Amino acid sequence: MDDCLFCKIAAGDVPSNKVYEDEYVYSFLDIDPKAPTHIIFIPKQHIGSANELDDNNAEIIGKIFTAISKVAKEKGFDKAGYRIVNNCGEDGGQTVGHLHFHVLAGRSLQWPPG
Amino acid sequence: MDDCLFCKIAAGDVPSNKVYEDEYVYSFLDIDPKAPTHIIFIPKQHIGSANELDDNNAEIIGKIFTAISKVAKEKGFDKAGYRIVNNCGEDGGQTVGHLHFHVLAGRSLQWPPG
Repeated sequence: MDDCLFCKIAAGDVPSNKVYEDEYVYSFLDIDPKAPTHIIFIPKQHIGSANELDDNNAEIIGKIFTAISKVAKEKGFDKAGYRIVNNCGEDGGQTVGHLHFHVLAGRSLQWPPG
Repeated sequence: MDDCLFCKIAAGDVPSNKVYEDEYVYSFLDIDPKAPTHIIFIPKQHIGSANELDDNNAEIIGKIFTAISKVAKEKGFDKAGYRIVNNCGEDGGQTVGHLHFHVLAGRSLQWPPG
């Protein structure tokens, strides 16, 4: 997607503070953090939102969650805990049209989640 | 896991308001909803939290997200949008030790997510 910000970030065409990268997943610091640790995880493949997931492409979500689990252990916030959030569409608060997961850690997350 | 509430719910040994079920995934209404629509999705397989995900078991997460996408379309909240939340550990606000995803819809979810 030529005009997708997160595709450009994953390709290195727009700078980001990279946290993790593998063949399928790219991860970087949120520029407007809402917790002491606030990391975004995206598939390198363009998927618009959770609405577009089906049996043909959803395997990438397991890869993203495996990456989150790895990074949590590497950064050491696995023990205290964290929250993983995906916003889909307007009511969800999605602001970039490329599927992404927020990981927030380093403080006690409150309920309800927004 | 003999003493796991969500294992018992998935097995039908503890009643729930079922929303969706397939070979791998069980879904039911949250008993303390924080949005007009508030559904929980769990793997039938016992996984304690996102911390336990790795290359050997994370495929189930894709199946869960495929189920969420299906249910969103069936219930009709896919267009307005929704938020998917996983709480891991104490800081995340995890209250049941079986991996689960909250799906909230029917209102404009706020930021930050808790």
